[in-house]
Amino acid sequence: MYLCVRNTGDQIYNTKYEVDSLYLLIYLLAKIYLQSSNQYLRLEGSLWPIVYPFMYTYLFFSFVFFCSDIEISRGQAPKPIHILAKEIGLLTEEIEIYGQTKAKVRLSLLERLKDQPDGKYVLVAGITPTPLGEGKSTVTIGLVQALTAHLKINSFACLRQPSQGPTFGVKGGAAGGGYSQVIPMEEFNLHLTGDIHAITAANNLLAAAIDARTLHENTQSDKALYNRLVPLVHGERKFSAIQLARMKRLGITKMDPKTLTADEINKFVRLDIDTSTITWQRVVDTNDRFLRKITIGQANTEKGFSRQTQFDIAVASEIMAILALTSSLSDMKERLGKIVIANNTKGQPVTAEDLGVTGALAVLMKDAIKPTLMQTLEGTPVFVHAGPFANIAHGNSSVLADKLALKLVGKEGFVVTEAGFGADIGMEKFFNIKCRASGLIPNVVVLVATVRALKMHGGGPNNKCIFVVGFLSFPIQNLKLVSDGCSNLLKQIQITQQFGVPVVLALNVFRTDSPAEINLVCEIAKQSGAFDAVPCRHWSEGGRGTMELAEAVRKAANQQNNFRYLYDLELPIVEKIRIIAQKIYGAQDIELSPAAQSQINCYTQQGFGNLPICMAKTHLSLSHMPEKKGVPTGFVLPISDVRASIGAGFIYPLVGTMTTMPGLPTRPCFYDIDLDPDTEQVKGLF
Amino acid sequence: MYLCVRNTGDQIYNTKYEVDSLYLLIYLLAKIYLQSSNQYLRLEGSLWPIVYPFMYTYLFFSFVFFCSDIEISRGQAPKPIHILAKEIGLLTEEIEIYGQTKAKVRLSLLERLKDQPDGKYVLVAGITPTPLGEGKSTVTIGLVQALTAHLKINSFACLRQPSQGPTFGVKGGAAGGGYSQVIPMEEFNLHLTGDIHAITAANNLLAAAIDARTLHENTQSDKALYNRLVPLVHGERKFSAIQLARMKRLGITKMDPKTLTADEINKFVRLDIDTSTITWQRVVDTNDRFLRKITIGQANTEKGFSRQTQFDIAVASEIMAILALTSSLSDMKERLGKIVIANNTKGQPVTAEDLGVTGALAVLMKDAIKPTLMQTLEGTPVFVHAGPFANIAHGNSSVLADKLALKLVGKEGFVVTEAGFGADIGMEKFFNIKCRASGLIPNVVVLVATVRALKMHGGGPNNKCIFVVGFLSFPIQNLKLVSDGCSNLLKQIQITQQFGVPVVLALNVFRTDSPAEINLVCEIAKQSGAFDAVPCRHWSEGGRGTMELAEAVRKAANQQNNFRYLYDLELPIVEKIRIIAQKIYGAQDIELSPAAQSQINCYTQQGFGNLPICMAKTHLSLSHMPEKKGVPTGFVLPISDVRASIGAGFIYPLVGTMTTMPGLPTRPCFYDIDLDPDTEQVKGLF
Repeated sequence: MYLCVRNTGDQIYNTKYEVDSLYLLIYLLAKIYLQSSNQYLRLEGSLWPIVYPFMYTYLFFSFVFFCSDIEISRGQAPKPIHILAKEIGLLTEEIEIYGQTKAKVRLSLLERLKDQPDGKYVLVAGITPTPLGEGKSTVTIGLVQALTAHLKINSFACLRQPSQGPTFGVKGGAAGGGYSQVIPMEEFNLHLTGDIHAITAANNLLAAAIDARTLHENTQSDKALYNRLVPLVHGERKFSAIQLARMKRLGITKMDPKTLTADEINKFVRLDIDTSTITWQRVVDTNDRFLRKITIGQANTEKGFSRQTQFDIAVASEIMAILALTSSLSDMKERLGKIVIANNTKGQPVTAEDLGVTGALAVLMKDAIKPTLMQTLEGTPVFVHAGPFANIAHGNSSVLADKLALKLVGKEGFVVTEAGFGADIGMEKFFNIKCRASGLIPNVVVLVATVRALKMHGGGPNNKCIFVVGFLSFPIQNLKLVSDGCSNLLKQIQITQQFGVPVVLALNVFRTDSPAEINLVCEIAKQSGAFDAVPCRHWSEGGRGTMELAEAVRKAANQQNNFRYLYDLELPIVEKIRIIAQKIYGAQDIELSPAAQSQINCYTQQGFGNLPICMAKTHLSLSHMPEKKGVPTGFVLPISDVRASIGAGFIYPLVGTMTTMPGLPTRPCFYDIDLDPDTEQVKGLF
Repeated sequence: MYLCVRNTGDQIYNTKYEVDSLYLLIYLLAKIYLQSSNQYLRLEGSLWPIVYPFMYTYLFFSFVFFCSDIEISRGQAPKPIHILAKEIGLLTEEIEIYGQTKAKVRLSLLERLKDQPDGKYVLVAGITPTPLGEGKSTVTIGLVQALTAHLKINSFACLRQPSQGPTFGVKGGAAGGGYSQVIPMEEFNLHLTGDIHAITAANNLLAAAIDARTLHENTQSDKALYNRLVPLVHGERKFSAIQLARMKRLGITKMDPKTLTADEINKFVRLDIDTSTITWQRVVDTNDRFLRKITIGQANTEKGFSRQTQFDIAVASEIMAILALTSSLSDMKERLGKIVIANNTKGQPVTAEDLGVTGALAVLMKDAIKPTLMQTLEGTPVFVHAGPFANIAHGNSSVLADKLALKLVGKEGFVVTEAGFGADIGMEKFFNIKCRASGLIPNVVVLVATVRALKMHGGGPNNKCIFVVGFLSFPIQNLKLVSDGCSNLLKQIQITQQFGVPVVLALNVFRTDSPAEINLVCEIAKQSGAFDAVPCRHWSEGGRGTMELAEAVRKAANQQNNFRYLYDLELPIVEKIRIIAQKIYGAQDIELSPAAQSQINCYTQQGFGNLPICMAKTHLSLSHMPEKKGVPTGFVLPISDVRASIGAGFIYPLVGTMTTMPGLPTRPCFYDIDLDPDTEQVKGLF
């Protein structure tokens, strides 16, 4: 149990506050004028010449004095990771250093600390997000900075590793921002310790094995297949361990390869994969839209066995979900073996184990299973482990990281983790899938909202450009828009309450929010049943700006906890989907496509009916229609297809059309990303 | 300059020799009987019952007492990598630790040691390989073990990082074997420090950028493209640095985006990629034969702009060649920008720089540029950097690793590096491409041969099964076969001599080779002009088994060196190809396909005519016909196509049909690969 982390946060404020005082003067002048009009302002027509000078002064100072995220990240030298590891009570033999700022933590730690009581478990979730994100990662980091570096309470942040696809595409990185970041942010946002690459390698080895096996079965006799699968080595044929396991599943109890009958050989050598049922896709960690639908196997060497398939973004791989949900190396290996890749021609599931690839997948993933230790800007510990994309995956960081962190912080400490997108998406999966897998019970939910997002939910414009949104469209107090938009906040609070966990609203404050707006949101939240509601200024102030939140979370964690899952696993798949659709999304009902219905029947008949549900749904609305903000009602949720991740352990229905591969825009982020070859510094990551 | 490396090699021999004495007794009994017949023996018919008992005794002891490569690797605890780093004179700030056994070495070291004289530079090459490999990696490691751990001369091995494709496919790993290995071999053979993953990520980001850009150009007006490429940010449009560079190339000198004419905007926004000329392929580090020819872009979102393309194995990426040939971070960035991905519709080259992705590629590769330090079984230092596949790539380790190592060993020290496949393939490229890029001059070539391979070149059977080959087919002395097969050895010695570097034959001895065979090969080699020829027993004895070779190499390194390139860069492309075909492969002439001729004309006209040549040719024969062993003559080399790697800096002609993506066999290596979840040990890697 660690007791202190040296607060290295103070030094970063010095230069910042000097700049701020000048900036604030200009800002206030602009604010006084603008607030006097007290109306929703679009800078058109006659107002333009008046606002112009203010805007430019603001912009000038913003750009001259304000630092970008990567500049802030670079401005703070991270402490050597072995020092941090020592501070939080890790033994030298429990870490594997990766450079100066990252270390993998061995799972043996769980065994050493098994008698240590767990700390408090806090989930950060959000309202339905706007295209800009509401700042869940920054709140998570701000909160642990406040707890550890300022209130001197042990805490740990558990974050997800970002995908390189969006980092080089549209979204940028996911290290937090401003004065609430994981540093060095370029390490966090790039290869990290290679976990996603390992997932890609494992995923694609399995994919290659499927098609190669199909080809070999299609072009060889039973005898030829058998002679190759059980080859003559030193005059003898022997089954490998994985082959004996398959024989057992087939009900063949013989140990000597010579004694198999022709029929048994046929059963043994032929997986008879029905290629039309293959659900295992290849993956890349790149936004490559041209791989959304492809035809493979068109070279002559593949003898005409071409088929249509697709690539997904790597983080959507079932192996990522397995990594997030597994509890140990042996559990991971077992899950990898259980992955169902297709049905055979008799409609029975074919697994990775049947392909003989379980051990190889486990070998490829043996290092990825260890969480990566990094630090916040204020020197507090962070685990980075497993992946994002809560819309098409479960989008939570790993069970193992949370478990290790809960032991490390000790009974009075706090572990803060984040669920992707809105509470309806990431949090629902956190409770029903991740908590079920881990057996852990969360103590508090922190729900993140911003005034500008609530305005959008209240009917404000949808503008993707951050700065223009931040200043030009929303600088003016508009209590009506805010109040209307709080419907979404209210709904997300209600969703959280269904799980019986106290909820604290963290209002991520921007400079453009007025005090009246901030008060209004906090009041509404409290009236809606939130345990507390506090404004947070972590982006501009780091941990100091989140101390009020930290106090509120500490109090909420001592509340009585009536945690419960939303549905019973034993219910039929359709029922479980309906419960989520109605109780979480507010749908009237669900509508299954014939394909979805037939898949559900198939999985139920195969014995997979009692798994939890991982919905693949847009994150931009409570409904399946991204443009419907606020709280849509009266809709029927269309389930277009249903897949199964048997290794990960869930059924995932696809709501409407969900792409599992993002694309690159006309001007991707990479236009601004550069490397200074002399200083080796990265530019343009955000 | 480092002076001592603690020899940790001794302890590994203890158990080994105890086992060996028992084994040798049995082996000698068998040998005495078998050699008495002195004929080429196939175990058929009447001999079978006589040989049977010997064979089984041999097999029994081999299996009971002999260790597999991974068991040997695991039997020796590697010293902590920071200790090794210190021993060889690296400063703490010059290394980045990756776990206990790997470290990346910073390029700043080159600057610190710039006044240090270089050591001797030794290349290990081979005869035309048989499917089993002749042991170049083991000789390389055995040689540095002998030099450093036994003769106390500073030395460094520079090896290539293996591809995971063959590791899980047919070939297994590439860490060496027996008592001449890089340890831990599972670290070496798996993700290492992520370099190949970084190459894959960079390669595929560029590929995704190409297709996305084509789609956006095909579906947007000039104005829409311009507005997106040079977006309005805070009321202003500004060109990014990479865009200004493109403007300059287009001859547009304006700085203000507002002032461009419609014609200039058209020129600026349209790369007008002729998709039929795209030579940039996607890559995966998996043997996935179904990706050899594919159709991409078939989803509705890609609006019908589908096209046929392929995936290559990741190590064949031009970015791997750039990594191997680059001299610094700024040189790498420049090379990445110069990559030509296609022609535009006017026949002009389109580059990565035109796509605005140079900086992002450099950022993805910023860690991969640092060589990885590991160690041999006897604790001597090894750099692992850049990749294999000398048939479809240049197949040499990196210039940077060699340069760093040459400084580290000091004037009297030795750096031993390996070129892939036969001397006609890897060594030719080493001299003409890699040495030209580095400016380094090799002192000695070590040519590796085995008796069993020479027998195959002499007309013996081609048998892929290692043990059956090793014992059943070649146990009997057959001087005629050996002598005939030496034609290939002679030819490879002659090839080496054309470059003016002294050559030492290293005969990798197997237990089944007779003294007469060994002597014969060494005699023929010396008569053919080799400086020396010595048998090596590094596989079974480690560095002790290669001390004679080490002495020979030391003497040869003091010989006069008349190093010269094979061809003048200023010659026309066709002439350079012809020189390689005739002087190296022994071809009568070359024959260009119309496609190849037209590509050569195009590259010459584009100004790329003065680059060196990187032939893509089978490694299994001096000719283009894999089945032709020995020294084929009188053949005409067919050049089916010609490509250009402008960033790497070479033209690569394709000889006949060369696949750039291996496949998985019916029973891939992965059937035997497993992970023990309790001990975390890897099984079945070799």
